[in-house]
Amino acid sequence: MNGMSATTALGSSSDVLFLMLGAVMVFAMHAGFAFLEVGTVRRKNQVNAFVKILTDWSVSTVVYFLIGFPIAYGISFLKPVKQILGDNQGYDITHYFFLLCFAACIPAIISGGIAERAKFWPQVIAGAIFAGITYPVFESLIWGQSSAGLQAFFKQVGGAEFHDYAGSVVVHSIGGWLALPAVIILGPRMGRYLKGKSHPIPISNIPFLALGSWILAIGWFGFNVMSAGHLEKISGIVAVNSLMAMVGGVLAALIAGKNDPGFVHNGALAGLIAVCAGSDLMHPLCAFVTGAIASVIFVYGFHIEQEKLKIDDVLGVWPLHGVIGSWGGIAAGIFGQEALGGMGGVSLASQTLGSLAAIVFALCNGFLIYGILSKTVGIRLEQEDEFRGADLSIHSIGAYPEEHIR
Amino acid sequence: MNGMSATTALGSSSDVLFLMLGAVMVFAMHAGFAFLEVGTVRRKNQVNAFVKILTDWSVSTVVYFLIGFPIAYGISFLKPVKQILGDNQGYDITHYFFLLCFAACIPAIISGGIAERAKFWPQVIAGAIFAGITYPVFESLIWGQSSAGLQAFFKQVGGAEFHDYAGSVVVHSIGGWLALPAVIILGPRMGRYLKGKSHPIPISNIPFLALGSWILAIGWFGFNVMSAGHLEKISGIVAVNSLMAMVGGVLAALIAGKNDPGFVHNGALAGLIAVCAGSDLMHPLCAFVTGAIASVIFVYGFHIEQEKLKIDDVLGVWPLHGVIGSWGGIAAGIFGQEALGGMGGVSLASQTLGSLAAIVFALCNGFLIYGILSKTVGIRLEQEDEFRGADLSIHSIGAYPEEHIR
Amino acid sequence: MNGMSATTALGSSSDVLFLMLGAVMVFAMHAGFAFLEVGTVRRKNQVNAFVKILTDWSVSTVVYFLIGFPIAYGISFLKPVKQILGDNQGYDITHYFFLLCFAACIPAIISGGIAERAKFWPQVIAGAIFAGITYPVFESLIWGQSSAGLQAFFKQVGGAEFHDYAGSVVVHSIGGWLALPAVIILGPRMGRYLKGKSHPIPISNIPFLALGSWILAIGWFGFNVMSAGHLEKISGIVAVNSLMAMVGGVLAALIAGKNDPGFVHNGALAGLIAVCAGSDLMHPLCAFVTGAIASVIFVYGFHIEQEKLKIDDVLGVWPLHGVIGSWGGIAAGIFGQEALGGMGGVSLASQTLGSLAAIVFALCNGFLIYGILSKTVGIRLEQEDEFRGADLSIHSIGAYPEEHIR
Repeated sequence: MNGMSATTALGSSSDVLFLMLGAVMVFAMHAGFAFLEVGTVRRKNQVNAFVKILTDWSVSTVVYFLIGFPIAYGISFLKPVKQILGDNQGYDITHYFFLLCFAACIPAIISGGIAERAKFWPQVIAGAIFAGITYPVFESLIWGQSSAGLQAFFKQVGGAEFHDYAGSVVVHSIGGWLALPAVIILGPRMGRYLKGKSHPIPISNIPFLALGSWILAIGWFGFNVMSAGHLEKISGIVAVNSLMAMVGGVLAALIAGKNDPGFVHNGALAGLIAVCAGSDLMHPLCAFVTGAIASVIFVYGFHIEQEKLKIDDVLGVWPLHGVIGSWGGIAAGIFGQEALGGMGGVSLASQTLGSLAAIVFALCNGFLIYGILSKTVGIRLEQEDEFRGADLSIHSIGAYPEEHIR
Repeated sequence: MNGMSATTALGSSSDVLFLMLGAVMVFAMHAGFAFLEVGTVRRKNQVNAFVKILTDWSVSTVVYFLIGFPIAYGISFLKPVKQILGDNQGYDITHYFFLLCFAACIPAIISGGIAERAKFWPQVIAGAIFAGITYPVFESLIWGQSSAGLQAFFKQVGGAEFHDYAGSVVVHSIGGWLALPAVIILGPRMGRYLKGKSHPIPISNIPFLALGSWILAIGWFGFNVMSAGHLEKISGIVAVNSLMAMVGGVLAALIAGKNDPGFVHNGALAGLIAVCAGSDLMHPLCAFVTGAIASVIFVYGFHIEQEKLKIDDVLGVWPLHGVIGSWGGIAAGIFGQEALGGMGGVSLASQTLGSLAAIVFALCNGFLIYGILSKTVGIRLEQEDEFRGADLSIHSIGAYPEEHIR
Repeated sequence: MNGMSATTALGSSSDVLFLMLGAVMVFAMHAGFAFLEVGTVRRKNQVNAFVKILTDWSVSTVVYFLIGFPIAYGISFLKPVKQILGDNQGYDITHYFFLLCFAACIPAIISGGIAERAKFWPQVIAGAIFAGITYPVFESLIWGQSSAGLQAFFKQVGGAEFHDYAGSVVVHSIGGWLALPAVIILGPRMGRYLKGKSHPIPISNIPFLALGSWILAIGWFGFNVMSAGHLEKISGIVAVNSLMAMVGGVLAALIAGKNDPGFVHNGALAGLIAVCAGSDLMHPLCAFVTGAIASVIFVYGFHIEQEKLKIDDVLGVWPLHGVIGSWGGIAAGIFGQEALGGMGGVSLASQTLGSLAAIVFALCNGFLIYGILSKTVGIRLEQEDEFRGADLSIHSIGAYPEEHIR
């Protein structure tokens, strides 16, 4: 073996390691989704949060393997394992693992919105449809095998392709805007609004909420940095922009949210969601601003959603992932410009169009799927089950079984 | 330096990084063992679970460094550090770190079975013997410096060497089948069976149990993927097979375990245990089936163990690591076949023989060591100490000290 | 592209990945700082611990970006992102990320000492000064752009440069010795000492304390191993020495601390703090001894501090990070010697001098900054606010809001 081929082999192995590490980091984020929800819902619904997230993850793994990834990238793994391994040590299937972690975010995001009163299996079915079909179709149009046409359109109309480096729009906004119809159709939790008056329901456990936020933030560096796909394309800028947007989100939430721990820890996530799209393009200080604006959107958006619009979105996933995901798409079009110290090559018009397209796509699919499920199998727990809590009524056990015998 | 030698240097550094990352991931799994046990035992035994796991880890580190690794691989580190570093940046000692993480699983696995009534120091001693001698001897026979003879025997009798890529048999089944004698000799917890009737003891904290399961599952990708040993041997198949077995385990537990959170979170582990042996050989769909079967074995095995055999194995480590570890060894012989889309080169006979050998080896050693300890220093807490809980009686403090003064 | 240039490109990418992974691991340690504090303080101050750590992290990120890193290394990022990216894929800014994680340890360390009675914003300001100016100045003198002069002095006087591989002195001792003046000026918590008698305040939650310790220990491998800066300089010795010092710390704390879970879990950290400086130099068995001695220092130092000196340092950060950090600097000068199997090239005199310099530097800065803050804005909560707890008085919410309505 000469120097060149040894290097090629090492590069190929390094790519598999690179993507694998990214995949594991984003897989870990799903524990973060779980704890964020567990800390926010009441104690009687904590077990349900854990099982939902793990079940949705598992179902997503299967459907994205069999259906979703082939839709998005035209690659199937229904062939002998020797062929899957190929001569690049299984790069494609590792890529599947990494991108599955994104697809599985869709039900995980929705889970936080519909918490505490949704039936178990209908939501599993909805998640399977989203991770297996809905999301991959959109993914295919932006990143995947069918992207040529739509991107050519964006380029013609806006002057540049639609740029979404790590999924502010493709992942987060799709998840958040799918959740909105779900939450609306489901209706608010019992007692959340009485006679038109809002009665906020206290959250259960800030340490678990904080743990969830930390796990998500840590894993996010895999989400963004490993979106490079190949080690040779890694960029330190992506890592630091993610960091900067996160701390912008934290500090803005600290001020706008008046030192509330829920806002501070969700503010970190707001910043991270907003920076995904343009994390490879912006100057770090612009990433900071992007994150700070995201966090302000969350603090006020959450308030408007809950108090004015009276939408009982338990974790605020529509403003957090939906609205801020869209903001992230647009922000890439602003702060990615060379005039602002960015890498350039983006167009505000294309970014806005692409972000709007995602909203329309997600709303239509969300109303369609949840509408059908609601009319057929029903998506909401019986009143009595909701009152007892999803833990006892669905899982026949509470989160702290020993307590009940003391 | 020319291209080739630069590549060699980079490859050497990459190998150290690769193994180090794997080691850290598997080290982290020990926090998972701790939380899994903490969530499952009663509140009065939570501190003990933490201290046991951390102490067992620490003792294992020392004995495997001084005795175990030299037994298994014939490499000693009792020489100046310059020689340890060598010209490959300390590859061997990094390899020690990675493989220590496996050895230290043995006491960590047993810990979950004997929880809530075992004396502290006798178990530390048992763990030291297992990690320092028992396990390394078996490791040496299968993977290590003495493997030639036994593997030649397997090849002659079964047609292929015994294949255990990441330790379904060498690690998990040894741990689980060592735990069985420990649990039998120790006897059930006070009140667990009264007049031949089973009185299940409620677990304390499902969020901690779930946290433990998540940490284990995340770290497992280091356990399996980095078992390649060298970066150039990395395989994306191993990562995705681990994933697939895990989700097979989750989904089967969801059904067989009737949506019970304990089964769902242990089901993930069941799948991961079963897939270790053949994770480099199977098609991902076969890995899914391997994991699903493992999970069904756990759900019914746990029930049979606890209710029919009346063995009080608190975390169910015998069915989980023992029986399923053996299943993993056998499954590699089935699903590794080319006829089922696998890589081939394995033999069901060899796999079955190797798995049986591990059972016999572990049972003999377990009854011997725990028998001696039981007859000499005693392995069980005094009744009064057990009643007060291991936390107060061994560590003089409960898990939530502030509570006692309120 | 020929073999050499392909290898160079791969090496450059690998360096960015290497540092990024290290940065993320040390970033994760800040979740560990948070949980360690949350588990140790009373329930009424848990929210405050989370928000302090996250806010200090965020402020440190900004000030170290704008001021600290330029002070320490003479590199500014106030230029277009294309120039930041350069032709090494943003190595410098990734290096900033990694080293920020060290700088941000300073306020995180102090946070544990001043817990339960400090005002919020004055501590944020102090943290900003430390991470933005104080720490970078010392960093610059030892590791950074101004190191030539001081290191030449050490070499002349002591025979070798002052060696601090991963910051026992530069990071931990600076943090711990800055905390001492803060704790002294702040005074003990209400009721901690009454009429000259010590009344220990029970900690709240050992599972959270243990989680914090585990997260810190896991992330520490990034702290130490990635201090190599470049992948080609990685050393397996560093990883195993970190491990050995940790388990030395655990086992010594187990004995000296009479099986107390707080000492055992902090003992792991004591060992890790002590080994940073010489982790690249020592034989693993010497690292074990270094960690064991550190842990004994902590057990007795904590007792002396709290009971004899009557200093209410809640997490014991002065003995833990301060005194043991200094011990780490000295230990490198002892166990790094070739006569003890080490790599050599260090001098006990230089190590002692450097460690003393850090103490003087930190004490002066600590008394100065906290003295000024105390005289101007005040650093201590009002009595009533302290009594209600920092959570309700600063953040208007407790850690378990649902409890209050049941």
